[in-house]
Amino acid sequence: MRIAVIGYSGPIDKDPVKSLEEICVQTGRVLAQKDHTIITGGRDGVMELVARGAKEASGTIIGVLPKGARGNPYNTINLDTGQDYLVRSLVLIHAADMVISIGGEVGTLFEIVTSYAYQKPVILFRGTGGWTDRIAPTLIDGYYLDNRRLTKILQISSIEELMLHI
Amino acid sequence: MRIAVIGYSGPIDKDPVKSLEEICVQTGRVLAQKDHTIITGGRDGVMELVARGAKEASGTIIGVLPKGARGNPYNTINLDTGQDYLVRSLVLIHAADMVISIGGEVGTLFEIVTSYAYQKPVILFRGTGGWTDRIAPTLIDGYYLDNRRLTKILQISSIEELMLHI
Amino acid sequence: MRIAVIGYSGPIDKDPVKSLEEICVQTGRVLAQKDHTIITGGRDGVMELVARGAKEASGTIIGVLPKGARGNPYNTINLDTGQDYLVRSLVLIHAADMVISIGGEVGTLFEIVTSYAYQKPVILFRGTGGWTDRIAPTLIDGYYLDNRRLTKILQISSIEELMLHI
Amino acid sequence: MRIAVIGYSGPIDKDPVKSLEEICVQTGRVLAQKDHTIITGGRDGVMELVARGAKEASGTIIGVLPKGARGNPYNTINLDTGQDYLVRSLVLIHAADMVISIGGEVGTLFEIVTSYAYQKPVILFRGTGGWTDRIAPTLIDGYYLDNRRLTKILQISSIEELMLHI
Repeated sequence: MRIAVIGYSGPIDKDPVKSLEEICVQTGRVLAQKDHTIITGGRDGVMELVARGAKEASGTIIGVLPKGARGNPYNTINLDTGQDYLVRSLVLIHAADMVISIGGEVGTLFEIVTSYAYQKPVILFRGTGGWTDRIAPTLIDGYYLDNRRLTKILQISSIEELMLHI
Repeated sequence: MRIAVIGYSGPIDKDPVKSLEEICVQTGRVLAQKDHTIITGGRDGVMELVARGAKEASGTIIGVLPKGARGNPYNTINLDTGQDYLVRSLVLIHAADMVISIGGEVGTLFEIVTSYAYQKPVILFRGTGGWTDRIAPTLIDGYYLDNRRLTKILQISSIEELMLHI
Repeated sequence: MRIAVIGYSGPIDKDPVKSLEEICVQTGRVLAQKDHTIITGGRDGVMELVARGAKEASGTIIGVLPKGARGNPYNTINLDTGQDYLVRSLVLIHAADMVISIGGEVGTLFEIVTSYAYQKPVILFRGTGGWTDRIAPTLIDGYYLDNRRLTKILQISSIEELMLHI
Repeated sequence: MRIAVIGYSGPIDKDPVKSLEEICVQTGRVLAQKDHTIITGGRDGVMELVARGAKEASGTIIGVLPKGARGNPYNTINLDTGQDYLVRSLVLIHAADMVISIGGEVGTLFEIVTSYAYQKPVILFRGTGGWTDRIAPTLIDGYYLDNRRLTKILQISSIEELMLHI
């Protein structure tokens, strides 16, 4: 499968990203070990740490970048979409079969909403802060962003639980 | 100003849209009376009722449509963007100076998030249900979708209050 | 009908635009007189002169702009699509029922090709230079950009001839 | 480098694609041997043959697909952009550092024009028919699509000549 990992951008040596280092690196590693292709927004933060973990496990990581952005050093391939960061996110999400969310500001919220609209299953890695945690209590019946029930949004809180879904 | 109105799609003679008829028609009317150009997603539901109100007050209404969709009969101009409904929404929001939200399912949530990301002020018409109400308690300090505080999301609950902002 | 007019950008008091002033203003005028909505890329050059002619005849002119661009003073409505100038052109062409081309550099060529791909009939105003003239000899059987014959590209060389098609 | 190869779609066992088999397979092979990442539109025709050649030489091939399209079996990674085939082509071209064109109908012309607009160097593989050959005589000073001279469009007519540029 192609699995997108979305979440906080920002420097990896500062919070909130720093505290998520182990979760991110492990997520990348287990995805690669299960031979999934990892797709991210290609830059720093959660994206970089996940890519680092995936690369250690010899995984393939595609960075789907907004116009002119630079990919992190762990991406196997950088794809500069030439578009703004929202259009870039539409392409990124559509390219994935499943989406894992870790922390995240409004860009991550945008991607969670896009995943649901494009009917891509989402896994919220709970306890990682940001919109990954804040969207959870709004879900209808614990799973859906609206009454159309387009796809399920699941919640996990450990790498072990993640492995049951990938 | 160009003011986008977003919200529920669906038949105007059935709930949840039917109960919002007066709010929608009045919103369209006051926007037109103040000489704003109204921009909507162009179809039925809230979009149609707002356009009807605006047309009664001789307003200009632009329907920014997804590929192949048909505009409601009150639009002054229908613009078929040729793109899917999410890309269409990016164009629609970017074209507006301000956004008013009434009820709404995931498409409306997508547009609220896009408005914030593109730094367009949003007015939530509270009490109209859907994501317009559900997004409110998630706002940081009552105004923001994330810590970057890109633009303010305001809340009103009557046409009188709306008129203070337009 | 919604009719897009495409062509040279650039200052209207300098060639190549200056020499096309009469053709552009008259094109705008006759389109407005026949009650067509005029759609352009919204900026200077051919777009501005066509909009001026249309406005003199009380026409409606929509400027479909790339991110952050400023519309010319004759547009009835400016729509900032928020996207780069190529994505903007996809939206502009899709929104039109027919396309008229006057002169033009690579942006105009892009729009002629897009019109054909989206199956929108194109009218080349011959003798106006640029890609409007340069594309003509490449047409298969005088009408088509490729063997799929997706739509006809017609050629005219006067306002009188134009009026037979609008 | 990331090098896009564009050209005819269609069945590989029928002309015009069939006659181009050797050129396409060899192009893919030499690009892979020089460690370039190959980007294509991901489907059949020239795209499939180039991918086959690249795969034989253990290259990495990314197929950038329009919504819902299926990639050919030689792609290393398929990216479904979720967008129509023109928006897809904007992303595909922007992701490349250089573009090689072999034959092609209007989609290829669209991509040649996009490459020039996004300032990506283009190499026309002459003698392969379609727009790759038909665009050549229109070039200003033999290299440019317009007077802005945004990037050079080169012409080659053998694999040996191609190797001088990659």
